[in-house]
Amino acid sequence: MKLIRNIKGIVAFSRQARLKGKSIGFVPTMGALHMGHLSLIKKSKKENDITIVSIFVNPIQFASGEDLKRYPRDLKNDALLCRKSGVDAIFCPQVKSFYPQGYKTYVQVEGLSDHLCGRFRPGHFRGVTTVVAKLFNLVSPDTAYFGQKDAQQALIIQKMAEDLNMPVKIRVLPTLRHKDGLAMSSRNAYLTKEERRDARVLYQALSCARALVRQGKKNVAQIIQQVKSIINKKKSARIQYVLFVDTQDLEPISRIKSPVLLALSVYIGKTRLIDNIVI
Amino acid sequence: MKLIRNIKGIVAFSRQARLKGKSIGFVPTMGALHMGHLSLIKKSKKENDITIVSIFVNPIQFASGEDLKRYPRDLKNDALLCRKSGVDAIFCPQVKSFYPQGYKTYVQVEGLSDHLCGRFRPGHFRGVTTVVAKLFNLVSPDTAYFGQKDAQQALIIQKMAEDLNMPVKIRVLPTLRHKDGLAMSSRNAYLTKEERRDARVLYQALSCARALVRQGKKNVAQIIQQVKSIINKKKSARIQYVLFVDTQDLEPISRIKSPVLLALSVYIGKTRLIDNIVI
Repeated sequence: MKLIRNIKGIVAFSRQARLKGKSIGFVPTMGALHMGHLSLIKKSKKENDITIVSIFVNPIQFASGEDLKRYPRDLKNDALLCRKSGVDAIFCPQVKSFYPQGYKTYVQVEGLSDHLCGRFRPGHFRGVTTVVAKLFNLVSPDTAYFGQKDAQQALIIQKMAEDLNMPVKIRVLPTLRHKDGLAMSSRNAYLTKEERRDARVLYQALSCARALVRQGKKNVAQIIQQVKSIINKKKSARIQYVLFVDTQDLEPISRIKSPVLLALSVYIGKTRLIDNIVI
Repeated sequence: MKLIRNIKGIVAFSRQARLKGKSIGFVPTMGALHMGHLSLIKKSKKENDITIVSIFVNPIQFASGEDLKRYPRDLKNDALLCRKSGVDAIFCPQVKSFYPQGYKTYVQVEGLSDHLCGRFRPGHFRGVTTVVAKLFNLVSPDTAYFGQKDAQQALIIQKMAEDLNMPVKIRVLPTLRHKDGLAMSSRNAYLTKEERRDARVLYQALSCARALVRQGKKNVAQIIQQVKSIINKKKSARIQYVLFVDTQDLEPISRIKSPVLLALSVYIGKTRLIDNIVI
């Protein structure tokens, strides 16, 4: 496995693979890899000749006051996991060379970026689409893999790739969960033991909503009220949003239809967690 | 020569060329081709195995009230010129398929896009960078060719390609001029006979400024005053801007240095013309 730290290196690696006629699968990450990431890597390995993982805590997708500085970083362990998973190359550029002085260019998907998390994280999705556009140009993958846990991100990246005619296929794979239902996330590492227990309530609340919908409940406001009351029972929980939205344009809906995306963002203590299900 | 009208067609054509190991030169245009365009095509032919020209009047780079509808279109003649010049393929997509309903993604180069023409054409350069990003993804050229007549556009595209790590080389070639000095432009076709005569004043004024700088004049305000008074002698002329700016960041300068970009935008009758020289 190659550990590539500079831009020339990744371009050369990717070009080499292309010249040999090999297909490239790409898993962009911010590191602190967990089973969710590994499931993306596994799928990429299955579907491509070469798998490249990027590990880059992208500063421009963090708003000021967010957790950029303390975001978990453990390249040594990440590299170990990648090696074990049969990854061919890790690309972990330095911020200075990735966004050199005088950097000015941004990619923005309008509309989709303003809903859900976009309302609370100004500039976040612009940062995501910009870094992904750059990575796609450097890695030139045939297929790139994202997790459904970040449903809005996945949708926005699909839209960007389609709108800008990027020569890459976007695959979105299911959220991986711990046994107690909590969605796997690098940010779970922030939780205290007690908060970790409380955090189970997110998936419990989502599952309750699913059951209500399956029972035929159609009143969005009532279901959301139930979800919120379940979450609010936990002292450490502070809800940012709970919303039923259209699975394509992310516009809030007023009456249950199928499919529908139920998405939520909840602070557990000081840690902001997101989760979602498609019903 | 192939005339390709749809997106699948251009992707297939470009992929075919790549598979054969051929280098691709690309000249993006809005049609109404003139000798300036042909000089770009000639250079592309010289430097690449395959030359692709796009002809697309890009609606999103026109602000409302601008000349989108009456912009000169003459595909038949353009195709003839391309064929004569040895172009391998023309790509002329339809607006509907290029920007399908629900299109949402834009590429923006901040800062550079706000100076000079950017102040008077809101959204113009965002439209330019977006269309060029899309075309680059579809054509996947090794090298793309632009004219120095649109100096700000060329600089912004270079910045975009560099910032987003696009795998393409940008070449900017000198402005071609008529014998009387007027820069070649598709918009010259709008001019009446009298306006066409008056339009010579743009290059006359620029040349006068160059002479003054070469004589050692350093006072920017004084030179600009001279340029403006030369232009204002023509009844049909209405100045939008005359500015000395830095050749890299396009910031206005207060004292002559070398190199410097002298750029101007002037309405001749109802036709907005731009021109520039590097001194």
